[in-house]
Amino acid sequence: MGVSTTPEPDGSVPVTAARVPQGERTRLMRLRLMEATVESLVEVGWTGTTTTVVSQRAGVSRGAQLHHFPSKQDLVVAAVDYLTERRRLELGVTAADLPEQGRTRAALELIAAQYVSPVFFAALELWVAARTDEALHEAVVRLERRFGRDAHANMIALLDIDERRGRNRQLVQATLDLARGLGLAASLTDDSARRASILDAWAETLDRELET
Amino acid sequence: MGVSTTPEPDGSVPVTAARVPQGERTRLMRLRLMEATVESLVEVGWTGTTTTVVSQRAGVSRGAQLHHFPSKQDLVVAAVDYLTERRRLELGVTAADLPEQGRTRAALELIAAQYVSPVFFAALELWVAARTDEALHEAVVRLERRFGRDAHANMIALLDIDERRGRNRQLVQATLDLARGLGLAASLTDDSARRASILDAWAETLDRELET
Repeated sequence: MGVSTTPEPDGSVPVTAARVPQGERTRLMRLRLMEATVESLVEVGWTGTTTTVVSQRAGVSRGAQLHHFPSKQDLVVAAVDYLTERRRLELGVTAADLPEQGRTRAALELIAAQYVSPVFFAALELWVAARTDEALHEAVVRLERRFGRDAHANMIALLDIDERRGRNRQLVQATLDLARGLGLAASLTDDSARRASILDAWAETLDRELET
Repeated sequence: MGVSTTPEPDGSVPVTAARVPQGERTRLMRLRLMEATVESLVEVGWTGTTTTVVSQRAGVSRGAQLHHFPSKQDLVVAAVDYLTERRRLELGVTAADLPEQGRTRAALELIAAQYVSPVFFAALELWVAARTDEALHEAVVRLERRFGRDAHANMIALLDIDERRGRNRQLVQATLDLARGLGLAASLTDDSARRASILDAWAETLDRELET
C-alpha cells in the first residue's frame, strides 16, 4: 500500500491519516457518512437530509462524498442497509439475559425498545419516504423483510415459543405490529407511561394465550 | 351579494362561478385546496407536496391560494384539521351495523380499515414530518389526541366494552396501537393476507380476554 512509516527527525513515527491503509480509510469514511446520514435523518428528517448536510456532519469533503455516493439516493440506500444491521445488532439480547420472574414482560420491554429508539425513528423516515419513492421502496422493502424475520425469530427465541401451536405465530406477529404502532406514537410525544401500561396488559395476555 | 342572474338571450340563466355567493365560493375553494393537499400527500408524500403542486392540482390560481394559505405550513396545518375531520367521519359506523355472529372480528375489520386507507397514509406523512418540524408538531399532536380519543370511544361503543373492568382499557388501547402498526406495514407493501390472519387471532384473543 506504500504507506510511509519514515520516522520524524525526533525519532517518532508520524501519526497521520496516511498511516492508515487506503482500504481501511475508505471503510472508515463510508462508516462516518452512514452514521452522519442516520443522525441527520433522526434530527432533521428525510426532507432536511441532503448530501451537503451529511458530508459536513461527517467531516468528509464534498468531493470524496460524491465519489462514493453520487446522489442522495445512493447515500440513503446504503444507509438503509447500515441501519438494518444496526437494528439487528440491537436484537442481540438472549433468553439467558431475562429474569425467570416476569420473563414475558421483560421480553416485551426489550422488543418495544427496538421501536422507541433513534435508529427506529431514522428507519421510519425512510419507510415513509419509500412509500412514494420507487428506488428507495425496493431497498426498504427488502431490508424490512429481513429485519422483520429476525425480530420474529428473536421473540420466538426469547420466550421459547413453539410457533406451530395454536395462535402462537399470529400472537408473535401481533406483538411486533403492536410494538411498531407504539414506536410510531412515541415518535411524536413521550407517552412512556401509556406504553408501560399497555405492555403490562399485553404480557399478561400473552402469558394466558400463548400455548406451550 | 350582487351576483348577476340576468338571463342569456336564449332565456337560460348563465351558470357561472359568479352565480355562487362569494362566501360559498371561498369555502369551496378552500375545500378544493384541502382535498388537493391530501391527494398530493398520498401520491407524492410530504417532500413532493408544494404550494405550487397543490394550487395546480386544485385548479386554483396561485394568487388565490397564496391569499388563503401564504405558506406550505399554513396549507398543511389546515389540511391536518381537515384530515382529522375526514378520519373522524370514517368512524361513523355504529354497533347496530355489526353482525351478531363474529361481532369482534367485524369490529376489528372496521378499526383496521381506518389505518389502511389513503387518509391514514396522508396523516402518516404529516405525523413523520411533524417529528422534526416544530410548527407542524403542535398541530399534529393536538389533532392526533382528538382522533385517538374518538377512535377509543368508537371501539368501546362498537363492542359495548366496560372499560372500568379488568384490563379492558389497556386491551382497547393495544388494539388501536396494533392497528396503527398494521397500517404502517400496509403503507409499504400489500400484506392483507398477513393482516387478516393477525386480526383473526386477535379477535379470538379479545373475546377471551375482555371482561364483561
